[in-house]
Amino acid sequence: MSSEKGTQKSFISTQDWDKEELDKLLSLARDMKLNSKKYQNALDGKSICMFFYNPSTRTRNSTQVAAYQLGMLPTFNSIKDSWIGYKGSESIKDTAIVLARYYDAIGIRIFPNAVDWKYKEGNRIMREFSKWASVPIINFEDDQFHPLQALTDIFTIQEKKKETKGKKIVISWAYHPKPLPVSVPNSILLASTKYGMDVSLVHPKNYELDDEIMNLARENVKNCGGSVSVSNDIEEAYNDADVVYVKSWGSLEHYGNAKDEKRMRLTYRDSWRIKDEHLDYTKKDSIFMHCLPIRRNIVADDSVVDGKHSVVYDQAENRLYTAKALLYYLLKD
Amino acid sequence: MSSEKGTQKSFISTQDWDKEELDKLLSLARDMKLNSKKYQNALDGKSICMFFYNPSTRTRNSTQVAAYQLGMLPTFNSIKDSWIGYKGSESIKDTAIVLARYYDAIGIRIFPNAVDWKYKEGNRIMREFSKWASVPIINFEDDQFHPLQALTDIFTIQEKKKETKGKKIVISWAYHPKPLPVSVPNSILLASTKYGMDVSLVHPKNYELDDEIMNLARENVKNCGGSVSVSNDIEEAYNDADVVYVKSWGSLEHYGNAKDEKRMRLTYRDSWRIKDEHLDYTKKDSIFMHCLPIRRNIVADDSVVDGKHSVVYDQAENRLYTAKALLYYLLKD
Amino acid sequence: MSSEKGTQKSFISTQDWDKEELDKLLSLARDMKLNSKKYQNALDGKSICMFFYNPSTRTRNSTQVAAYQLGMLPTFNSIKDSWIGYKGSESIKDTAIVLARYYDAIGIRIFPNAVDWKYKEGNRIMREFSKWASVPIINFEDDQFHPLQALTDIFTIQEKKKETKGKKIVISWAYHPKPLPVSVPNSILLASTKYGMDVSLVHPKNYELDDEIMNLARENVKNCGGSVSVSNDIEEAYNDADVVYVKSWGSLEHYGNAKDEKRMRLTYRDSWRIKDEHLDYTKKDSIFMHCLPIRRNIVADDSVVDGKHSVVYDQAENRLYTAKALLYYLLKD
Repeated sequence: MSSEKGTQKSFISTQDWDKEELDKLLSLARDMKLNSKKYQNALDGKSICMFFYNPSTRTRNSTQVAAYQLGMLPTFNSIKDSWIGYKGSESIKDTAIVLARYYDAIGIRIFPNAVDWKYKEGNRIMREFSKWASVPIINFEDDQFHPLQALTDIFTIQEKKKETKGKKIVISWAYHPKPLPVSVPNSILLASTKYGMDVSLVHPKNYELDDEIMNLARENVKNCGGSVSVSNDIEEAYNDADVVYVKSWGSLEHYGNAKDEKRMRLTYRDSWRIKDEHLDYTKKDSIFMHCLPIRRNIVADDSVVDGKHSVVYDQAENRLYTAKALLYYLLKD
Repeated sequence: MSSEKGTQKSFISTQDWDKEELDKLLSLARDMKLNSKKYQNALDGKSICMFFYNPSTRTRNSTQVAAYQLGMLPTFNSIKDSWIGYKGSESIKDTAIVLARYYDAIGIRIFPNAVDWKYKEGNRIMREFSKWASVPIINFEDDQFHPLQALTDIFTIQEKKKETKGKKIVISWAYHPKPLPVSVPNSILLASTKYGMDVSLVHPKNYELDDEIMNLARENVKNCGGSVSVSNDIEEAYNDADVVYVKSWGSLEHYGNAKDEKRMRLTYRDSWRIKDEHLDYTKKDSIFMHCLPIRRNIVADDSVVDGKHSVVYDQAENRLYTAKALLYYLLKD
Repeated sequence: MSSEKGTQKSFISTQDWDKEELDKLLSLARDMKLNSKKYQNALDGKSICMFFYNPSTRTRNSTQVAAYQLGMLPTFNSIKDSWIGYKGSESIKDTAIVLARYYDAIGIRIFPNAVDWKYKEGNRIMREFSKWASVPIINFEDDQFHPLQALTDIFTIQEKKKETKGKKIVISWAYHPKPLPVSVPNSILLASTKYGMDVSLVHPKNYELDDEIMNLARENVKNCGGSVSVSNDIEEAYNDADVVYVKSWGSLEHYGNAKDEKRMRLTYRDSWRIKDEHLDYTKKDSIFMHCLPIRRNIVADDSVVDGKHSVVYDQAENRLYTAKALLYYLLKD
């Protein structure tokens, strides 16, 4: 890791890290899945502050267990029991400096609603924490990125498909009653292009990801091989895919305007509910991925989520190993 | 334990377990109370997810300390900081399968108000968790059962009275301003009949426990000796009792209808407040039990709660040992 | 420690403890800062219940990490997830006795708003917990005292200024949009007089601390040397100070009457915002202290909080060592 704080030492986006470093994380995670005992209490005496502006199931619980298995203390802090807040009574600077005096790492989750749907404001706060804290900041999902999820996704694809190069991944929008953050699609797009995959991004019109992200993805393609294409045609996008990655997200055009957004998305309710027929376009041995939670029979049919292509539970389980790997990589003396 | 998931491996009601197994738990709990050091860190590296739809003092804190003393990580999850919920955004199935990938056990508390006062819906959710999770589900009290309490009650009766056979227990309704779950009376009724006690259930008219529970209790009597009688007469019920077990509960007739229920119960405010004179009917060395929390001078007088018969604090303390015993029994390799 | 419960064994105010005992705590804290490894897991198997009626950042997180580094389990209980409450369904007596059966210590935070702004009611509840619990109660800040903060403050002054005797400390009111508890000014006043400092208390008219506290401070002066003076004149108070201790607090005259209080305090908004010019009155090597959180550019200017005099982050960090020292002192067999 270079010496510049907040880009290397912290884990805010996979895009901030060199591929060689990410490879080391993935390799560590594989070893942790196979040889759990080897790392037991390896970080004894260390501690991580887990700070949540928003609810969490997988991120919270996988990290707590990961930290504990390494011998660490994980503490859970909810914004509801804290002074800290967006526009709160204590500055990010003071909070970050002080918590870093007690803990060896700080994880933070902050969603769009916690920053009044001002796009990238969550990520800005994340980076401000990182600017001031003398210990690593770990992004537990902000309004722009969810790097622990993306790292786990690559881990899972490597586990199921042996390699990423030459594999086609479709990153597919799906219907959901509410506009959700773009952090997951942004993150899998950047991670899959960094890992040289052939990426097919598909969504309805008006659900484009932002230019900054698309440009980074194209840069990744240039540096890492692979390809990226965008379309609004499900059949074409899903055709011959090795990996189907489904996730709903909100339109950036109506960002923070739930009412107009909902009216728009309602028109896609049936056509963008993922069904068996969509998976029929893909390779026979393709895998269906979703970061969970998923609204069953709204985002995707039960027959998809529970079907032979689905690897969603293994994907969720793998969060444990990548969380352990990241903690170990960042904090091992 | 038989191989069928959800009835044996999980701990949802003492009624699901053979008496021989419960005896092993009680024996383990006794040893843990005497030889705490012997079990220190016996479950090192394991973890339990503690999930609460409702508040808790004893269950939460005794289990946290029990788990820690065995070397485990206990994590506290409140519904307020979570995606999961009755009618929530994530299915019980997905939540159960995923949490079981991280943890070695899952404890859940879910009260009537969390399931819109649809009787047994909390227990149904508990059993659905157990259906899908690959690790034991521990009932931290649902709308039908509170097995950790009942196990502790038997433990405490054995501790104070040497044996359960031939002892008379009165399970007594008491006044409380609000209709409370029937989980505790259901559970002590089933546990005490399983342990061959002579059970005298006493309550005002319209506060009958449901037929399913009463039939199970009568079945226990057939299999385990002892007896069960029901009456509305305090003096007769308390007469010559060895154990007085007091608990208020809501009428199933007005279940979920707090207004009508309250009007009805108000008429019992004075006559069903437990006083010294009630204990005078019992044996001289009888014990007064209550699972706590108790509204003092409403449910029972200070002179009762603090009196010579009362064992409520020892009863509460014993929650620690039965929780430890259960974790050890379920999770020891 | 004498054998009387609730005054010695518990840590509710530094005023309850002999100076010799406080000296031992400070000496332990120094050793813990230097030789952290020496105490690792020294309290293995023990546990502390941390109970919060109100939010916390430093107290909560420093104590959690302190307990963990000593090998203990710290559990966080929020009033929001609990039965216990002021006027709650369970009596303090029952809660205290039961929690003490599980834990080796109990920490409690309870602010004025949790007791309807009835001054000293929070402290009364704290002492009632201590009356009934068979384990030490640790005051995590009530409506009258914040002894862990005051202990840390003396620790920090000794660290930065070598000794307390002969040093002048100005305890200065400052503007804040809301009336805050008097626990911090009360506590630093009593601790600094106990440590023989020359104390200059300065605040606008109507912001007097209560007579009981002032009398205790004067008694400390008699017993420990040093001096105490009160004024409304910033320049005179700050003149030649070694230590500037800034904290806003609410007027006892309008206690619980936020509306009238705010109108009154608004008149001091500019004159009582601490600026560089105030520090110019002090010694060149004076230190600026604040317990945090601080509203920047409202209570004090950025240039003060971030300036050369400021030791606020070291002061916050030192909370970790005094918390560890206290736990070790109270709980080491």
